Amino acid sequence: MRLASFTDYGMRILMRLASDPEKRFSTAELASQFRVSQHHLTKIVQDLSRGGFVTTQRGAGGGINLARNADDISLGEIVRHLERRFALVECCKEDGGACVMKSRCRLKPRLLAAQEIFLKELDRSTVADCAWSGEPAAA
Amino acid sequence: MRLASFTDYGMRILMRLASDPEKRFSTAELASQFRVSQHHLTKIVQDLSRGGFVTTQRGAGGGINLARNADDISLGEIVRHLERRFALVECCKEDGGACVMKSRCRLKPRLLAAQEIFLKELDRSTVADCAWSGEPAAA
Repeated sequence: MRLASFTDYGMRILMRLASDPEKRFSTAELASQFRVSQHHLTKIVQDLSRGGFVTTQRGAGGGINLARNADDISLGEIVRHLERRFALVECCKEDGGACVMKSRCRLKPRLLAAQEIFLKELDRSTVADCAWSGEPAAA
Repeated sequence: MRLASFTDYGMRILMRLASDPEKRFSTAELASQFRVSQHHLTKIVQDLSRGGFVTTQRGAGGGINLARNADDISLGEIVRHLERRFALVECCKEDGGACVMKSRCRLKPRLLAAQEIFLKELDRSTVADCAWSGEPAAA
């Protein structure tokens, strides 16, 4: 079972921002701290902004910061937003997918129920619970 | 959040076998019924055999069938086996991945806990609950 690296990086961004809610971060700074592609992070920041998780401001003194209180952003909410275009299995695709079982399938409701439980478990934690100051791990 | 198509097809195979536990299926038959690649199914059948879910027998009168009672194979067990080489996020990779947070990360235990709850929910259902006779869905 996998979350997209898009989601993985999106969560890291929010965890870093949560530690310094007043600071405006640049994508260059985040990319450098996480050692990942700035181009990739830019796309993720745009999606986080679209989801109302961050605000972005252009120009000098601009940057990215959390749009809401860190303790008001649940992990479940983040994952639901960043993963929204991915389907758990074939039949969960928007066009219904190509599986021939269709309405006869008794697996689909069970998978969806398990997925919902996964997300509800993540709803119990917030970005504040996972805030990261940027300090590297002990060697 | 996604399961691999490998896992998706693996579950379909077991659901079909569960409906006819005495019958020996050929991969050609399964591929035809599911309208998927026989080559791909062959690899999945090998992995299901490796996991003790099916037995395979070569030659005339040979084929694939369930190795155990369908009501003794939980969905959680199947997913754990077929998904075992996939990591939920970067740091869950076997080599520890490239995320810089490492031991300072407070997200990882929360993600792993949610994943475990997902799998435990799937442990509550068996392949017998999802057996599919091969009958197509109503038009």
